[in-house]
Amino acid sequence: MINQIREKKPLIHCITNYVTVNDVANMILAVGGSPIMADSVREVEDISRICNGLVINIGTLNERTIESMILAGKAANQLGHPVIFDPVGTGASRFRTETAKKILNEISCQVIRGNASEIKSLAKGIHTTNGVDACEADRVTSGNLSQMVSWVESFSKSVGAVIAMTGEIDLVSDGKRTAIIRNGNSWMSRITGTGCMLDGVIAAFAAANPSRIWDTVVDAVAAAGICGERACQKAVSEGRGTASFRMHLIDEMSLLSDYVIEKEKKIEVQ
Amino acid sequence: MINQIREKKPLIHCITNYVTVNDVANMILAVGGSPIMADSVREVEDISRICNGLVINIGTLNERTIESMILAGKAANQLGHPVIFDPVGTGASRFRTETAKKILNEISCQVIRGNASEIKSLAKGIHTTNGVDACEADRVTSGNLSQMVSWVESFSKSVGAVIAMTGEIDLVSDGKRTAIIRNGNSWMSRITGTGCMLDGVIAAFAAANPSRIWDTVVDAVAAAGICGERACQKAVSEGRGTASFRMHLIDEMSLLSDYVIEKEKKIEVQ
Amino acid sequence: MINQIREKKPLIHCITNYVTVNDVANMILAVGGSPIMADSVREVEDISRICNGLVINIGTLNERTIESMILAGKAANQLGHPVIFDPVGTGASRFRTETAKKILNEISCQVIRGNASEIKSLAKGIHTTNGVDACEADRVTSGNLSQMVSWVESFSKSVGAVIAMTGEIDLVSDGKRTAIIRNGNSWMSRITGTGCMLDGVIAAFAAANPSRIWDTVVDAVAAAGICGERACQKAVSEGRGTASFRMHLIDEMSLLSDYVIEKEKKIEVQ
Repeated sequence: MINQIREKKPLIHCITNYVTVNDVANMILAVGGSPIMADSVREVEDISRICNGLVINIGTLNERTIESMILAGKAANQLGHPVIFDPVGTGASRFRTETAKKILNEISCQVIRGNASEIKSLAKGIHTTNGVDACEADRVTSGNLSQMVSWVESFSKSVGAVIAMTGEIDLVSDGKRTAIIRNGNSWMSRITGTGCMLDGVIAAFAAANPSRIWDTVVDAVAAAGICGERACQKAVSEGRGTASFRMHLIDEMSLLSDYVIEKEKKIEVQ
Repeated sequence: MINQIREKKPLIHCITNYVTVNDVANMILAVGGSPIMADSVREVEDISRICNGLVINIGTLNERTIESMILAGKAANQLGHPVIFDPVGTGASRFRTETAKKILNEISCQVIRGNASEIKSLAKGIHTTNGVDACEADRVTSGNLSQMVSWVESFSKSVGAVIAMTGEIDLVSDGKRTAIIRNGNSWMSRITGTGCMLDGVIAAFAAANPSRIWDTVVDAVAAAGICGERACQKAVSEGRGTASFRMHLIDEMSLLSDYVIEKEKKIEVQ
Repeated sequence: MINQIREKKPLIHCITNYVTVNDVANMILAVGGSPIMADSVREVEDISRICNGLVINIGTLNERTIESMILAGKAANQLGHPVIFDPVGTGASRFRTETAKKILNEISCQVIRGNASEIKSLAKGIHTTNGVDACEADRVTSGNLSQMVSWVESFSKSVGAVIAMTGEIDLVSDGKRTAIIRNGNSWMSRITGTGCMLDGVIAAFAAANPSRIWDTVVDAVAAAGICGERACQKAVSEGRGTASFRMHLIDEMSLLSDYVIEKEKKIEVQ
């Protein structure tokens, strides 16, 4: 898994937001990939050609980069590179909801990653009122788990992409199988960028092994969750706060081995 | 104070610079709020509707976002959300000075936060020659304190906003009362973003308690200063430098309690 | 060297990428300068006037900022301020290669800093296929060292700028003398932004002593390498990963003294 990334060093093209872009780049390096951020219409196709995977994240969406996202996505599709789409804040504004739909219409995305509110807004294609954090009501809990698994599975089937719906409990579905992943930690929602960094990790895993997308997304989500658990343990044991946690999160990914992933992952497949 | 923020989790809309945006987002989370960064004219009004407060920071001003700032500010005004304006670098270029004036003309800002040089340039509406750091000559010192208090008070009255003029000694005035805050530390000027992060903290405090703006700004400035003191103590005692200080600064905010604010704040009201 | 920067506090204007901009600002502060990031055509000339040096970095190049780069560069040239140009990713897209050529044609750059692949692509003016990291084949090694020294020297002469070609072994040439610098560490390529931060450090050194550009670039590259060595030692001894290394890297620059530079620099001049 992670060894393969470190051998292949996949080059990941990211069109992402300016809030967490530095963390995303450092996280891709930590997992063993190499990031390149490029969002001008005048170069995204050239950049696609030298890369192995693409992340499209609409966290700070603006008019200028939508066309770049579409061009880069089409180029990645033609080249057979995995495309990871993160519909950040879908539902929070008409602009985001409509752009997310446009991206799904024009590009074939292999993976869609978001929190429960974003995935639901995306499925419904409607403009509801959430921020970038998931609403309480949308959460996956032990109570609604089997219902959510069915829902994610059917959305995955209809949209034709692996869905990674992350939160307290993470679900990863390819329409036939759904993994329920119980790694991770509530501290992961106390910093910005955990989701965006996961996009980069998923892209690195998928680009290193593009023929088994669902398996690699499951491993990537578990790996990020394990890093979250270990980082939290360190921050708490040192009496530290959220910025230390963020540092430890990237540290742990740079130190992570396949042995630890295998030993600590909590994955159940339905 | 800070407990109230953690209960209400106010959603803060930020149109800010790309230099310190990640620190601002993490600081808003650390204090107990939830940040959303969105700067496209096509969505800022939608975003305003789901938020509780707005930060406008012109640190890396460009043509594209001025209209977004105005639209978001007007929407926040209509909704009665507190607007925090940070005129970064006003005086350093005609473009910034004029944009700052335009914002003050078109939006009702509840709080204006800046260093002494920025606030003075804003008051004079002139194009002087400073960078983003305060000039030596503009500093608030024990020598010119009573004079500066009167000046800030009268500027606050004329502009109709709470003025938070921060530096070695911080002044927060609503035109009637001025708080002199002596928390904080010289290390806070050794990293970028201390001021921008304070904008976010002020917005979270004000959004959680919008009826008592002056009081909440005073508390927010003291709280940030206390974190600066504690972070500096940790960095120095570990033999560390400025990047460790930055980490500790956000850590301390995530660990801060009302009890500590009450005990360590150094506020004198005139 | 570094004392002089801390006394003069040179103001460095940066038009740089949004991936590493925060690290660049904090690194400039750590070395003793003061950063200002401004990239609008409506203000870059005003900003140039109050600054002492300029960094142009095309890491996330877009149509909007090219004109700003040219305007700022011309203003800096007229004012006699050192201009540091970093042709990030030149060779990775036609857009970057052509923009880099345009910048070199229209501005007089005192220093060009890049990895071996970028400098080679720049010299050849051709569109080859690299990412933002250097290709294996382009590396300076003990085997090809004398050949690379001659090549860099002749490129420096032809372009009329000090060339800082950084990697495992760093070469700094003004066309007559070439310094071979063996400070630094492989961990420096495990995080994003080491090169961009070095741009800022070089600018601060050069702005504090603009009459001896080659000497100051040599010192700046050695200083950054020493910080890399010290940061790596700390991260490894604590069992930490790459994010801790990044923190230590900036920490070490903020703690660095001329005494340590003098004692630990590994510079050989040919």
